[in-house]
Amino acid sequence: MQLVAIPGALRTASTNRKLLRLAVRHAEGAGAKVETVDLRELALPLYDGDVEAASGVPEAAKAFAAKLSAADGFLIASPEYNFSVPAALKNLIDWTSRLRGQPWRGKPGLLMSASLSLVGGNRGLWHLRVPLEVLGAQLHPDMFSLAKSHEAFDDAGELVDASLAKRLAAAVDDFLRIARALKA
Amino acid sequence: MQLVAIPGALRTASTNRKLLRLAVRHAEGAGAKVETVDLRELALPLYDGDVEAASGVPEAAKAFAAKLSAADGFLIASPEYNFSVPAALKNLIDWTSRLRGQPWRGKPGLLMSASLSLVGGNRGLWHLRVPLEVLGAQLHPDMFSLAKSHEAFDDAGELVDASLAKRLAAAVDDFLRIARALKA
Amino acid sequence: MQLVAIPGALRTASTNRKLLRLAVRHAEGAGAKVETVDLRELALPLYDGDVEAASGVPEAAKAFAAKLSAADGFLIASPEYNFSVPAALKNLIDWTSRLRGQPWRGKPGLLMSASLSLVGGNRGLWHLRVPLEVLGAQLHPDMFSLAKSHEAFDDAGELVDASLAKRLAAAVDDFLRIARALKA
Amino acid sequence: MQLVAIPGALRTASTNRKLLRLAVRHAEGAGAKVETVDLRELALPLYDGDVEAASGVPEAAKAFAAKLSAADGFLIASPEYNFSVPAALKNLIDWTSRLRGQPWRGKPGLLMSASLSLVGGNRGLWHLRVPLEVLGAQLHPDMFSLAKSHEAFDDAGELVDASLAKRLAAAVDDFLRIARALKA
Repeated sequence: MQLVAIPGALRTASTNRKLLRLAVRHAEGAGAKVETVDLRELALPLYDGDVEAASGVPEAAKAFAAKLSAADGFLIASPEYNFSVPAALKNLIDWTSRLRGQPWRGKPGLLMSASLSLVGGNRGLWHLRVPLEVLGAQLHPDMFSLAKSHEAFDDAGELVDASLAKRLAAAVDDFLRIARALKA
Repeated sequence: MQLVAIPGALRTASTNRKLLRLAVRHAEGAGAKVETVDLRELALPLYDGDVEAASGVPEAAKAFAAKLSAADGFLIASPEYNFSVPAALKNLIDWTSRLRGQPWRGKPGLLMSASLSLVGGNRGLWHLRVPLEVLGAQLHPDMFSLAKSHEAFDDAGELVDASLAKRLAAAVDDFLRIARALKA
Repeated sequence: MQLVAIPGALRTASTNRKLLRLAVRHAEGAGAKVETVDLRELALPLYDGDVEAASGVPEAAKAFAAKLSAADGFLIASPEYNFSVPAALKNLIDWTSRLRGQPWRGKPGLLMSASLSLVGGNRGLWHLRVPLEVLGAQLHPDMFSLAKSHEAFDDAGELVDASLAKRLAAAVDDFLRIARALKA
Repeated sequence: MQLVAIPGALRTASTNRKLLRLAVRHAEGAGAKVETVDLRELALPLYDGDVEAASGVPEAAKAFAAKLSAADGFLIASPEYNFSVPAALKNLIDWTSRLRGQPWRGKPGLLMSASLSLVGGNRGLWHLRVPLEVLGAQLHPDMFSLAKSHEAFDDAGELVDASLAKRLAAAVDDFLRIARALKA
């Protein structure tokens, strides 16, 4: 079981990166190999049809797509910006959607979100589902939403609330069960 | 009546730029002053909380917000990418959402879309409504959707189909009527 | 200023009815005349094309549409069921959408929701916007969302939290200001 | 492989019933056992919290839920009404969501839509995904959308366009492959 992990935020200290790290660790503990990509390192330009016509899809987007194509699924932890998808994450999706071979197609995906609000970033994840499903991703119905994320982690990056940590582990386990079934 | 016009695509020959041009001309003919901005010229970096913490909201986003704040409404013509909002347009929204003074709040807006498909880019516009309305924009309920956009324009940039041209004019007129009422 | 008020829930003791009552009272205090309809009294059958072909749109739907057509706007307070619109409210919308004369077209509308959850019923309201806007309603961008509704009201039906009561009053005032501008 | 098939329309001659029939026949040809339910026969009252408090979830909803719980997946062919879910179908979802045991949870589902429009009923299906996924259904990312449905079928109920018939068969096959993997 090979997974790609994608944080939707660029900010280094993003709680979505922290949340993703915990999900990745749990998945690795359950036997998965996980490679985490970094949208900032990909440094994709904003999608522009003229850029594509002149020089094609950027190499960094192709390299990401190759990783995703080789993987059995993906994990995303993304903030919501104005109830929708961060531009950086949408930009990755839009560039990769231009590739033949459709790297998202058939890939099981687990969506997570950390947010300062009482609500969690769930509304943004509902918007994120649409482009991913249009591209054929098999998204897990349950989405992990971490509310009040500014007080959710201790200094070691663990979730303070043990019941939340359990719920996260269960969400990842449930997703892995499905991803294994689809791989088989 | 002062309006800001925003094309959602970066591509120079974008049919959404063409569609917007026609809408702008009609609005000007009806007495509005319209300033068209260009997302490519704004050259905003992808929203990144660390960039914001280090150097604030980019000057180009502030300049756009000042224009929008001074205007009585806005026109957007945007493609849909994977049934949702182009990253470049979402990025503009996300950067400007960080400003005090909320430039979108209370502004009447007309959404349009040109698309190669039989359907038009209507699905992407429905996604676009959410962040704009969260930020308080007064969006016109009717959205102008131009299907099969690759064959919709003649060499002079006019709509080939006279009934479509009439519908576009009526949509802009209807929007201006509302925008004038809200301004008063 | 004549308004129609529509509770989205059938339940007699629904907190959405309570919330609507407060909004109606405030609107009346601000000079509006408001008529509240009751979806249970309308007793519309589930929309069925065969029923429509055999006996047309039900009289109760026509009577509602006539009220709405004569009004200058509407208020809805609706629960969310499974993150979307209650069937009873969607049913009213679907029946009235079959009428010539389009009663929702151009009508300003304010959407509100009370919910047991920490989040309020906001997600359901986002789904509710779509059919109403397709039918031409001019929906207010701000939506009033009352969380933890089971502990929000006192025995007299007033909001316990004075700051929430103020926010509700301000939301209604803001809506009335827009509705008056659109009427003029 | 046991499936439940659900037409979203009540109308007897609905093209969604026709579309569903073809999907069911193909699934049966591929070895599945399929039971088609009829929303009109279920004759569920509109969801009403007082009705539930007084007499519980209706027996017909419980019987449907028992069938779904025993099945390995479901097929839905539904019209879109005003870009969203028909009240009758949403009503079934809302009643069954009140049951312990969560009949939709983990069930693979294929969504289809027939529509008079050039677009197909795809927009309504995107709205339908939300309540089903909230309840835990594993929805197939690809959705079959039949446009111009009034001229799509011949007198024998077959799709006139052979390439569309092939695409429908492929969609059902692809869904069955996933459903079998998840069952295993």
